[in-house]
Amino acid sequence: MSARPAVAALGGGHGLAASLQALQLVTDRITAIVTVADDGGSSGRLREEFDILPPGDLRMALSALCDTSEWGLQWRDALQHRFAGGGPLGGHALGNLIIASLWDLLGDPIAGLDLVGRLLGARGRVLPMAGEPLQIEASVLGADPACPDEVTSVLGQVEVATTLGRVLSIRLNPDPPLPCREAVHAVLDADWVILGPGSWFTSVMPHLLVPDLRDALVHTSARRMLTLNMALNTGETQGFSASDHLEVLAAHAPDLHLDVVLVDPSVVRDRGDQLRDTAQALGAEVVFAQVADPERPGTHDSLRLAAAYRDVVE
Amino acid sequence: MSARPAVAALGGGHGLAASLQALQLVTDRITAIVTVADDGGSSGRLREEFDILPPGDLRMALSALCDTSEWGLQWRDALQHRFAGGGPLGGHALGNLIIASLWDLLGDPIAGLDLVGRLLGARGRVLPMAGEPLQIEASVLGADPACPDEVTSVLGQVEVATTLGRVLSIRLNPDPPLPCREAVHAVLDADWVILGPGSWFTSVMPHLLVPDLRDALVHTSARRMLTLNMALNTGETQGFSASDHLEVLAAHAPDLHLDVVLVDPSVVRDRGDQLRDTAQALGAEVVFAQVADPERPGTHDSLRLAAAYRDVVE
Repeated sequence: MSARPAVAALGGGHGLAASLQALQLVTDRITAIVTVADDGGSSGRLREEFDILPPGDLRMALSALCDTSEWGLQWRDALQHRFAGGGPLGGHALGNLIIASLWDLLGDPIAGLDLVGRLLGARGRVLPMAGEPLQIEASVLGADPACPDEVTSVLGQVEVATTLGRVLSIRLNPDPPLPCREAVHAVLDADWVILGPGSWFTSVMPHLLVPDLRDALVHTSARRMLTLNMALNTGETQGFSASDHLEVLAAHAPDLHLDVVLVDPSVVRDRGDQLRDTAQALGAEVVFAQVADPERPGTHDSLRLAAAYRDVVE
Repeated sequence: MSARPAVAALGGGHGLAASLQALQLVTDRITAIVTVADDGGSSGRLREEFDILPPGDLRMALSALCDTSEWGLQWRDALQHRFAGGGPLGGHALGNLIIASLWDLLGDPIAGLDLVGRLLGARGRVLPMAGEPLQIEASVLGADPACPDEVTSVLGQVEVATTLGRVLSIRLNPDPPLPCREAVHAVLDADWVILGPGSWFTSVMPHLLVPDLRDALVHTSARRMLTLNMALNTGETQGFSASDHLEVLAAHAPDLHLDVVLVDPSVVRDRGDQLRDTAQALGAEVVFAQVADPERPGTHDSLRLAAAYRDVVE
C-alpha cells in the first residue's frame, strides 16, 4: 500500500457527494462509482429527451472532488448552476448539459467524465456504476395507504424514494445491466471500498444489484466500510433502524462481508447493541464517530467525516 | 506600434468568425466586437427565455480564436456542439448555454466571455458591441411582393436577413443602445480596425448605429479596413454591387473614413472601377486579393485571408 490509500466510494446523490468532499481531504486516489438510476429532475428530463445515463449524480460527484483553485471553484459553480424559471431550460444544471454534450461528442461516457474532471482539476475519477441507464423497481408493502397489507411493485427512483409504504426489496431494469468495466477494476484495485451514505434503496443498494460490481465487492482484497446515514427513518427508509439498514443490505447481497460500519452515535437509540450484533454477523466492527453537521441537521460535516475516514483508513 | 499589431475586428456570425480565424494567424492582439441583435435559432430562444444578450455570435467568435492544443480544440468542439432532435434542448449550442450560465452566475457579460476565452486559450478577447440585447428594424422597399413600391418596416434580424424586398436603411431598438465601454476602448486603442465580412445589414452595419462605437470608429487613430463579402447580391443585399455595399455603409455613417477596402477580384464585375471611385470618396484604397475558398463557394479561405491581412497590416 502506498502512502495514500486508493479508495473506491460507491453511492449517489448528496450522500456520495458529502462522502467525497470528506474523502478528498484524506487521499487523492479516489474513484467515485455512481448510481445511474435517477429519473427525476434535470437528469430525468435528459433521459427522456436523449435516452442517456442520468448525469446529475455524476456531476455532483465531480463537483465534490473539485480542486480548490479559483479556476476549479469557478467552473464547479458553473457546473452546479441551474437555469432559472419554468421554461424549456429552467431547472437544468449546466453541468448536466455539458456532460450530455461531451457524451454525444466523444461517444464514450467515461471519456466525457474524465474531461470534466480535468476541467475541475478533480482529485479522483468519477465513473457510472453501469454502462446503461437503469430503472429501479421496488416491492413495497402498503404503497397505497388504503391497502396497508398489499405488496405492490413501484417503478422509478422518484416513485421509490417518495413511497408512503415500506420498501421490502429492489430490482434493476434491465437485469443484469451492462457493467462498467473501469468501475469493477477500481473496486478490485482499491485499498478501501466505502459504501454510502445516501438514499438507501435508490443510491446505495443498487450497486449490489449489478452482478459484476457485486462480485468485485465480494472478492476484492480491499477493506469494506459502510457509512450509515445521518438521517435514518425518513423517506424511503421510514421505520428503519440502523440495524435494519444493514439487514436489508445483507438480504440483497448475502455474500458481502463488511469490515467497518461508521455511524454517528446520535442515530443509534439503544447504545448500538443491536447494530453491533448485526454488524458482527457481517464481519464488521462498528465505529462510532461524531460526524454530524451541527448547522444542517441530517447531513454529515465534511471535516468531521474526513477525520473519521482518516482514522479508520490509516 | 509593437511587433504585432492590435486589431479590433467588428462584425457578427460566420463572416466575423472567418475573419478572426484568419486574423489569429497574423496577431494575437485581437479584440472581436460582436453584434448582439440576433433573434433566431438557439440565441433567439435564449433571448426569449431569459432576456439576455444573444450568445451565438459571441460563441462563434470565441471558437474562431481558440488555441489549437488538443484541450482547446476539444472544448471548442464542445462549445460548438448542438443538441440533437426537436425536444426542449434540440438545436441549442452547448456554448450558448455555458455563456448564458456564466452571465447569470457572474452577473457580468464580459467576465463570462473572458472565462470562456480562458477555457479555449483564445488568442484575443471577445466583446459585445452593446451592453444590452438589440432589435434590428429595417425600412424595406417591396417587402411584400404584391406591393413592390411600398416602403415598410421589418422587425428583427431573421426577418430582415430573409426579406424579399430591398433594404434601404436600418435602425436599432433601443436607440441609442447601452454602449460597451471595453469595445469602445478597444477601437480607440487599436492599430487597425477591420469591419466585415458578414451579413451587411444585420452583422456589419449595426456597429455604426451604436453612437459611442461609431464615434470611436470615426475618431480612432487606427487605420480602418473594410473586408467585403465573397457572396454579394444574395439574401439581404440582393441586387447590391460591391460599390452599393460601400454606399449604404456611408449613408449610415457619413463621417466614417476608410483606409483600405479588401475585396476578392471575382466579386467585382467591371474591373472594380466603380468600387474604386466609391472607395476613394471615403478615403480608401481598394486592395484586390484572391481570398476565396475554392472548396466552399461564397466564403473566405482562412489562409488566403490571413495572407491578405498580413500584407495590408504590415
